Amino acid sequence: MAGHAAEAQFVARLNDVAAATESLLDRLLAATAVPLERARPERLVAAMRYACLGGGKRFRPFLVIESAALFAVPRERALMAAAALECVHCYSLVHDDLPAMDNDELRRGRPTVHRQFDEATAILVGDSLLTFAFDIVARPETHPDAAIRIALVLALARAAGLGGMAGGQMLDLAAEGRFAAAPARLSLAEVEELQAMKTGALLRFACAAGAILGAADARRRAALDRFGATIGEAFQIADDILDVEGDAATLGKATGKDAGAHKATAVAILGVARARERLNGLIAEAEAALEPFGADAGLLKAAGRFVAERRA
Amino acid sequence: MAGHAAEAQFVARLNDVAAATESLLDRLLAATAVPLERARPERLVAAMRYACLGGGKRFRPFLVIESAALFAVPRERALMAAAALECVHCYSLVHDDLPAMDNDELRRGRPTVHRQFDEATAILVGDSLLTFAFDIVARPETHPDAAIRIALVLALARAAGLGGMAGGQMLDLAAEGRFAAAPARLSLAEVEELQAMKTGALLRFACAAGAILGAADARRRAALDRFGATIGEAFQIADDILDVEGDAATLGKATGKDAGAHKATAVAILGVARARERLNGLIAEAEAALEPFGADAGLLKAAGRFVAERRA
Repeated sequence: MAGHAAEAQFVARLNDVAAATESLLDRLLAATAVPLERARPERLVAAMRYACLGGGKRFRPFLVIESAALFAVPRERALMAAAALECVHCYSLVHDDLPAMDNDELRRGRPTVHRQFDEATAILVGDSLLTFAFDIVARPETHPDAAIRIALVLALARAAGLGGMAGGQMLDLAAEGRFAAAPARLSLAEVEELQAMKTGALLRFACAAGAILGAADARRRAALDRFGATIGEAFQIADDILDVEGDAATLGKATGKDAGAHKATAVAILGVARARERLNGLIAEAEAALEPFGADAGLLKAAGRFVAERRA
Repeated sequence: MAGHAAEAQFVARLNDVAAATESLLDRLLAATAVPLERARPERLVAAMRYACLGGGKRFRPFLVIESAALFAVPRERALMAAAALECVHCYSLVHDDLPAMDNDELRRGRPTVHRQFDEATAILVGDSLLTFAFDIVARPETHPDAAIRIALVLALARAAGLGGMAGGQMLDLAAEGRFAAAPARLSLAEVEELQAMKTGALLRFACAAGAILGAADARRRAALDRFGATIGEAFQIADDILDVEGDAATLGKATGKDAGAHKATAVAILGVARARERLNGLIAEAEAALEPFGADAGLLKAAGRFVAERRA
């Protein structure tokens, strides 16, 4: 696929996936579909909807769906896994924004959940979205084979938990100097490890989910895993470059916070120019990982370039 | 089984289950056993261990194990489900104790997690324990049949999420008047519904887990579900009576808080004497539900009496 055509197709597909994910999350969180035996906690459901709907590029759902498409997985199954992953992603944003964590007031150009509602509600929104993710994955609509669903549960729990995203956030707070007199001086290797947990694990799961849903053989599974790991690292570096160079109005959140808060980022260690070199190297690596899929992986390759060139 | 012998056997078994649960949680959260691919967030693991180990009656694990024993489920499988449930229970205590929620400083006679560590760590401890619970349930050690494991995942997610525990906590905060000028005046039915979600759902899951692990037929599954629902309601009323009559030193946490905070409790509506009558009625109902199991359910019946008579 030529570069231009691939890019246009990528943007169209990303928008398409975003709309489908939004619509499924809306349906899953709708009044009649919520699996309630008893009273409906209206405020909680409203705040969960506020946290999940109406925004986001849905890049993780895109990765799930395009990875699954390599194995001809029915789209409605991949969308269920994508919606679950998006619930985990949104829960992490809600909790990370809390005053005791990163203390952010804006997210996607709107007040964060604890500003729009209150702190107690925000804590429960995060807890409920995380729990709901496993509810979604466990449903037969995600895949008729229970063994595949349980493999997704295990992979998602590992990606989100203390060995993944939550553990990475903890290491990040520690690196900031929250629990010591001064911020820690991390090596590049330590920063990369931290980011691979905090941000990379969920992006890597997105690609793994496609392989799990598609019952991929070991070789293809490993290829997607390598793609997911490199794209995850690239995504974080691009995010850190944006934090330095970006514009708050375009991003819909505060920028320039990382330097002020002594955040552990590759950009802080390497500087923007060398970080961008590293980013380009990672994108090339990610594309190379997709080699076993040939032309079928054109959209995933375009996703790599999207990550490298993103401006928001 | 005669009353006295049953009670002695019950206490011995409860202690035995507590020790086995403690030991399994210790092993699951131990350095080598934690499924980490990368850096180990030491502070997070330490705080998770603080939140989970060294305390608690482990009444929920007891219900899982004794319910499972009715179907001759191997004990080590029931213990895995019990450990997962205890992770969910402990996560809920850590988050409920947070300043933005119930703002408690003592739990089981020790400083709460956010007092011993800090708020950000406490939020991440809760998130990680909830995630870890699904990790545990998804492992083959819990049951070799993936269909049984995924049934546990779904039941646990429903019990813990917006239709269960988290939703109940939200309704409870609303009833306290957090989001309105004055506390709401709930009817007894509304209070019972709220408590069935907030506390009852996990206790009910404990009994359901035994039936799921044991691949119980519909009749026995329904019987255990009725037992779980009534014991759950009884447990909460006993807790509320203790809050009025109990002694902080014995309980290891603050007492008399419910009245001050306008908590929605059956005791507040009925008074202690009539609440105790209701409690006794529920225990009789719970025992009756166990009829299909005959003498095999002696220990579960004793658990009902333990709930009715608990002093701490």
